[in-house]
Amino acid sequence: MRMYDIIVKKRDGGELTKEEIEFFVEGYTKGEIPDYQASAFTMAIYFQGMTAEETATLTQAMVDSGETIDLSAIEGKKVDKHSTGGVGDKVTFIVGPLVASVGIPVAKMSGRGLGHTGGTLDKLESIKGLEIEMTKEKFIENVNTHKLAVAGQTGNLAPADKKLYALRDVTGTVNSLPLIAGSIMSKKIASGADSIVLDVKTGSGAFMKTLEDSEALAREMVNIGNNLGRNTVAVISDMNQPLGYEVGNANEIKEAAEILQGKNVEDLRLLSLEIASHMAVLAEKFSTYEEAYEAIEANIENGKAFQSLRTLIEAQGGDVSMIDDLDRLPKAAHEIEVTADQDGFVSAIDAESIGIAAMYLGAGRATKDDEINHGVGISLKKKIGDPVKAGEALVVLTSDDEQPTDSIQKVKEAYTISGEKVEKPTLIHNIIK
Amino acid sequence: MRMYDIIVKKRDGGELTKEEIEFFVEGYTKGEIPDYQASAFTMAIYFQGMTAEETATLTQAMVDSGETIDLSAIEGKKVDKHSTGGVGDKVTFIVGPLVASVGIPVAKMSGRGLGHTGGTLDKLESIKGLEIEMTKEKFIENVNTHKLAVAGQTGNLAPADKKLYALRDVTGTVNSLPLIAGSIMSKKIASGADSIVLDVKTGSGAFMKTLEDSEALAREMVNIGNNLGRNTVAVISDMNQPLGYEVGNANEIKEAAEILQGKNVEDLRLLSLEIASHMAVLAEKFSTYEEAYEAIEANIENGKAFQSLRTLIEAQGGDVSMIDDLDRLPKAAHEIEVTADQDGFVSAIDAESIGIAAMYLGAGRATKDDEINHGVGISLKKKIGDPVKAGEALVVLTSDDEQPTDSIQKVKEAYTISGEKVEKPTLIHNIIK
Repeated sequence: MRMYDIIVKKRDGGELTKEEIEFFVEGYTKGEIPDYQASAFTMAIYFQGMTAEETATLTQAMVDSGETIDLSAIEGKKVDKHSTGGVGDKVTFIVGPLVASVGIPVAKMSGRGLGHTGGTLDKLESIKGLEIEMTKEKFIENVNTHKLAVAGQTGNLAPADKKLYALRDVTGTVNSLPLIAGSIMSKKIASGADSIVLDVKTGSGAFMKTLEDSEALAREMVNIGNNLGRNTVAVISDMNQPLGYEVGNANEIKEAAEILQGKNVEDLRLLSLEIASHMAVLAEKFSTYEEAYEAIEANIENGKAFQSLRTLIEAQGGDVSMIDDLDRLPKAAHEIEVTADQDGFVSAIDAESIGIAAMYLGAGRATKDDEINHGVGISLKKKIGDPVKAGEALVVLTSDDEQPTDSIQKVKEAYTISGEKVEKPTLIHNIIK
Repeated sequence: MRMYDIIVKKRDGGELTKEEIEFFVEGYTKGEIPDYQASAFTMAIYFQGMTAEETATLTQAMVDSGETIDLSAIEGKKVDKHSTGGVGDKVTFIVGPLVASVGIPVAKMSGRGLGHTGGTLDKLESIKGLEIEMTKEKFIENVNTHKLAVAGQTGNLAPADKKLYALRDVTGTVNSLPLIAGSIMSKKIASGADSIVLDVKTGSGAFMKTLEDSEALAREMVNIGNNLGRNTVAVISDMNQPLGYEVGNANEIKEAAEILQGKNVEDLRLLSLEIASHMAVLAEKFSTYEEAYEAIEANIENGKAFQSLRTLIEAQGGDVSMIDDLDRLPKAAHEIEVTADQDGFVSAIDAESIGIAAMYLGAGRATKDDEINHGVGISLKKKIGDPVKAGEALVVLTSDDEQPTDSIQKVKEAYTISGEKVEKPTLIHNIIK
């Protein structure tokens, strides 16, 4: 078998065999197939696409290129959740406790990574003492005892994906549906989940800007999951503005805790309940979505969901008083209001600009070596559809700096105020299974 | 400027600017742009194509990446000729003397290369003593004195093309019209010609199998030439069987000399006159094709064309007696007839198989270090449309080996005999200018 022939076959629109795809993934991972052939190949895939079967085979080959996490020692069906990413997305901190509270094991492995705010682990570390490094044995014991544990991702998961993604990133082939879908799913599957709920964002602040593209990506991923024996459901949710009202690290932990305490932040609560309910059905704990929804919502009201978060924090050595009294979470010295210049209705909030404003404050990492500042962030006071008067606060920045000029500028750019009344955007656009 | 953005622009069907194309060619030649970006870029070009202007700009940039030959010290318009390659193509040895015989300077620089038979230089070296290495001054002096000289190509011509072609060859993008056309034309233009006649082969033995593809390639090349100020004409000629009757090194020199001596080998004589006449018109020696044709054909009859070949050989130290008496050319010891198994008409001769059979005899190079055997080759006795009887010779192999089994086998595979009468193929399909 020669890589050259595989490139030409795909270039000419042919369907690759399992052997051909495995030959590529294995050869590329080992460095036997050079970057210049891999980049020509991925560009050919960009133009010619892949069938559902090819995409599933590629994904499985990327899983097989490295270690896989064995969660079989955890009792019950393991359900994982993945978001394609957006600003203010703290759903993981809410659905973990929600799902655990109805007795379903949640074994969450997360990363740090670059971004506007920290990753899941960085956000959790807003809580003093909370430890995310633990042995595999301790991790499994915690899940079995408390139904919920969060740990740093260890092991060399899907190295083929890592290498290929880095190449695609500099050769213009990131934006290929089967390759995006395969990349995401290979990491999820290597992490050991039996079933997966995907939160695919759509809108101006999402990787996929249109509903059509988001649905197509969701369909690719659901197909991969189902092809590889993992029940998969995708929720297409809105990212035309940040999710909820808080952006940052402690900011987001605070808002997540408030939801679990029963606060009704409409979009965030609704999306969390939606995702948690699908997870509970995939875990085969409930036979219908409605039953799952009801049980989970009840656990917010009766305090069990919040208790589940407290248990997680205690089990991992964190200072639970910071959650009981949210004012004890880290908070920078200065609060700066950014106000509206005119009367009207908020018609758009560019999520990416809000994210960048948070990063300027120090909430995220631009490079791998940057330090996260847990106490800085952005509280939105107005969201799309809200009426606003000139001089009224749009957001409040929490900052170490008394005059964070760049952030203020970015926030101002993010908001559009219209003279006419504006509808609130739809939150959940579609469910794909 | 970033290569990444140039890849994405082309991927999305955009038209690249002169600056962007030059940025790529310069950066890639210098090694500042890595192979993996160049291969993704050329695959994007494969799918999205290039406009005539982009292709011309690419070609000029490849010319500018290295040395160019300055032929300005030669008096008169310099016309070059290029063939896209076929089996039995000895047209260069005929049109050089033909064109020189009417007073037009022919400054031919050629290579060796790999192939079924040797390159132009190898074939010429069938003639004892003939020297193709000379100083640039001597080369120009010879052209000015005798109107004709043939020398080995020196200098680092179009290194960007050389590097890019090697990459395309292993990444599945050789077969892109603008890239093929740019590659060929960059070398021709760097060689210093004012005008160019292209012999674009079409048919089973050609790089381009269909007339449509051959015409498209011809059009691309003519556009490049005209865009870059070189009058260019393309002749689309048939390569559904070898050209003429002789394949090899001495074999081909012999047949070329016979044409110049007035022998009527129909297809070879016709194509040579056609190409020579276009060259003579482009050199502005004649105002019409018909006048040029008449003058050149007359020089075959009156002996001037053959004299022009003799002069070339003498001027470059070759043994002219080998041309005066063609039996003195190198010839291997054994002649082996390959005969027909059945009565009928020759309906196909796979040119590539004939070429491979010649290479097996030792006429060509499979690797750079192989030695050419000038005295081996293949004489066709039957061409398409000829009637044949079982046991009658299809070809005669001239071989060092008494039983060249592989070659005999290849020749047998090459010929198809049909029970029904077959038309001779059209020789000249189209002229594109």
